[in-house]
Amino acid sequence: MRDIHWKPDKNSVIPLHQQIYDYLKGKIINGEWTVGTKIPTQRSLAQQFEVNRSTIVYALEGLIADGLLQSKVGSGTEVLNNTWSLLTSMPPPDWKSYVNSGIYKPNIDIIQEINRSEADPTVIRLGTGELSPELLPNEQMLKIFQDTQKENLSLGYVEPKGRFSLRQKVSEYLRAKGIVASPESILIVSGGLQALQLISIGLLERGATILHETPSYLNSVHVFQSAGMNLLGVPLDQEGVIFEKIEQLKRQHRAALLYTIPTFHNPTGIVMSEQRRQELLKVCQKAALPIIEDDVYSDLWFDSPPPLPLKSQDTQGNVLYIGSVSKILSPGLRIGWIVGPEPVIDRLADIKMQTDYGSSSLSQYAVEKWLSNGLFTDYAKRIRTELRKRRDFTVHILEKYFSNFATWSIPKGGFYIWLKLTTNASTRKLFELALREKILLNPGLIYDKLDDDHLRISYSYASFEQLERGLIRLSELIAHHTPKLR
Amino acid sequence: MRDIHWKPDKNSVIPLHQQIYDYLKGKIINGEWTVGTKIPTQRSLAQQFEVNRSTIVYALEGLIADGLLQSKVGSGTEVLNNTWSLLTSMPPPDWKSYVNSGIYKPNIDIIQEINRSEADPTVIRLGTGELSPELLPNEQMLKIFQDTQKENLSLGYVEPKGRFSLRQKVSEYLRAKGIVASPESILIVSGGLQALQLISIGLLERGATILHETPSYLNSVHVFQSAGMNLLGVPLDQEGVIFEKIEQLKRQHRAALLYTIPTFHNPTGIVMSEQRRQELLKVCQKAALPIIEDDVYSDLWFDSPPPLPLKSQDTQGNVLYIGSVSKILSPGLRIGWIVGPEPVIDRLADIKMQTDYGSSSLSQYAVEKWLSNGLFTDYAKRIRTELRKRRDFTVHILEKYFSNFATWSIPKGGFYIWLKLTTNASTRKLFELALREKILLNPGLIYDKLDDDHLRISYSYASFEQLERGLIRLSELIAHHTPKLR
Repeated sequence: MRDIHWKPDKNSVIPLHQQIYDYLKGKIINGEWTVGTKIPTQRSLAQQFEVNRSTIVYALEGLIADGLLQSKVGSGTEVLNNTWSLLTSMPPPDWKSYVNSGIYKPNIDIIQEINRSEADPTVIRLGTGELSPELLPNEQMLKIFQDTQKENLSLGYVEPKGRFSLRQKVSEYLRAKGIVASPESILIVSGGLQALQLISIGLLERGATILHETPSYLNSVHVFQSAGMNLLGVPLDQEGVIFEKIEQLKRQHRAALLYTIPTFHNPTGIVMSEQRRQELLKVCQKAALPIIEDDVYSDLWFDSPPPLPLKSQDTQGNVLYIGSVSKILSPGLRIGWIVGPEPVIDRLADIKMQTDYGSSSLSQYAVEKWLSNGLFTDYAKRIRTELRKRRDFTVHILEKYFSNFATWSIPKGGFYIWLKLTTNASTRKLFELALREKILLNPGLIYDKLDDDHLRISYSYASFEQLERGLIRLSELIAHHTPKLR
Repeated sequence: MRDIHWKPDKNSVIPLHQQIYDYLKGKIINGEWTVGTKIPTQRSLAQQFEVNRSTIVYALEGLIADGLLQSKVGSGTEVLNNTWSLLTSMPPPDWKSYVNSGIYKPNIDIIQEINRSEADPTVIRLGTGELSPELLPNEQMLKIFQDTQKENLSLGYVEPKGRFSLRQKVSEYLRAKGIVASPESILIVSGGLQALQLISIGLLERGATILHETPSYLNSVHVFQSAGMNLLGVPLDQEGVIFEKIEQLKRQHRAALLYTIPTFHNPTGIVMSEQRRQELLKVCQKAALPIIEDDVYSDLWFDSPPPLPLKSQDTQGNVLYIGSVSKILSPGLRIGWIVGPEPVIDRLADIKMQTDYGSSSLSQYAVEKWLSNGLFTDYAKRIRTELRKRRDFTVHILEKYFSNFATWSIPKGGFYIWLKLTTNASTRKLFELALREKILLNPGLIYDKLDDDHLRISYSYASFEQLERGLIRLSELIAHHTPKLR
């Protein structure tokens, strides 16, 4: 309800309060705001409709007088009747209890707040983990469809594992990363998150434990917890996840899987060393602990390619490998893949058919064309160059404005700088403070709920101008408000 | 593992058995077929690779001699070692137990068999519920992208409820069906099945009961059962679902929702009468029982438009309405919508963000363009004309060849004829028999597990020539084999 796009027409002869009255009344009598619904606050309505608060008060008073709204002391204003309910005297379904009783948990507040704030185009997004719209290949994408013969487009349902010719291209693409996978061992999914969702409902029991790096992207999504599973963090060092305790943890907690982002780790940017990869594989093989390798950033290196994925060394079928085009080609395509032992892929394909009958065939077609004829390779080269410029620019600003109260490592690829504040300022509080100035941050607690001194700074999304302005203002906020932020 | 596309090269100087040996060995040593995996039968491999069974036997014997496979009496051949496991003597993860312990149930066997058979282009599909590829608007779809300015395409992540300009178009489109819904009350989803999936995990408790028509499409999907819910059938008559017992059933089973397809019901083709709609709404309102209205066929009418959706009369917010472009525009787009009270839509949008971060932005863009400038309206007219021809053609064949042993009603729209055999033949057995002749049927048990005398005949998918040939052959099978099919 905080995503209303409508605004009253300031040039209309109808008074603003009347337009607002009519609009809100419509919401109520059409059943969009059912009886019992708590409506947005006067303050947020005034902000949304760009009018004075008194105009809102005037409109709401009219609806209260009509008997449609009632205002309750201390708990805001809610829908009391909808004129129809007056006529029928029948209550609507108790939607509130439905909303509260769903199996899946709501996103944590701060994630919901970030999701909402991202819709505001005036906000400077310093944490957003996606490519800037100006880097996305709109022109080339259209050209793909312009060059398509109508016979070659396929708009029907696709076979369970996804378009076969796309899986062939993915198989070739993976070969360059040292991964040997035939098309039957590849499942096309709607992005990396769906891969995790399918694994959670397709391969695990309720109550299963997932090991992961701390901090981790995995803490920012609810996919495993919502399916009734537990997460357990394992510490990281500069070479990647620390493997010594994994076997013991597996035994103690009967862990079902280890989730890792070995390359350009989210949020820390760490690249797991070659040696650590081999050790980790060995430990997990010994413990018969399958690995989920989330490898969505590995094409985004700056100086030299990172070590090959764990999957490339996995001759035993120990690793479920996740890839995606979201971080490099375009997130809106919603295309990724899972690679693993065939019986596992068969199972996940069946689950995918049960949840959405496959991914968009337009998107699958487009990705297939991207992976053909070197198109993707050339494009990836360009994106790496652009991202590297952004990294250099951002590091330069950090050095100039943050040296006194923060530390960081320079990432060798990916999107993120894991900035550690050394001032004792709470990054949770800093998040709130910055958002009031329209600067959107990703504080550390998203990735580790005990963390209150890191920010995930992303150089991929904001423009150079925004990066500069946003970071400088952020440094001022930290400098001036640190006592308040403790 | 039954979807291998690879075949040996018959023109190669390498003997066929050697090519097959190499191929299978690759699967094993790359970890795609992990230790313990049961490999396909000799018969199915011979069929798949288009070679004699003796060639398969020869290749398998090689792998057995290598110690990679072992053949177990009565349970086929399975992977014993993968050369790496010989070296390391470490077992792989027990994937079989993972596959078996997932929360979601596998699709019922017959659905899995149908999904697989659909991949075979030589099969005549008499039950498939989608438009024939020749009816799909490939040319117009490409033209949409050809007419697009690159500035207008958006390839980034989309806001939680879906592209706003698409939701505006959907809102206008729904207005013509008598539904008043602002864009904030509309959630874009990846097709109708995902709508059900989100409702199941977002609004219901484990153990909740869902009422539905018997027979129903809902029995063919596992979405509610996999999330731990129960289905309970309510009988249908020619005017739609029988409502008299609903209140009682709700009380007895504490039912949480009623799922209905009022227009061109799947699989029966029934259209709920105007009066029944009003009665049903009243009963459900009185019982405070929310309705899921699945309305994906209503644009496909032949003579006159069907009654307006239940949602158009729903002033209380009692109805969650599901629409989709899959049945008319193209299933591969994977675009549909849910309309309902705003707090419910907010919740479902949050869950959608947790499962796949939104639907393909390419698909959303395309649907928005389709719904603009009358493009969809003109197209829908054409599809209705084409479908009507197919219905007439099919009914004509049924009259000629099935009158002696089947009854049916003539559908006024949609895809389906609900054919009832009067010969006591089991449609489950008929399914197996027909599949051996490469005719794919949808037997009644998919929609009601106790049903063994109906077939869902779809006139939407097969070509005229296939419809004729397939149905005639089917009538022969029934005529000649009925004693065996009892």
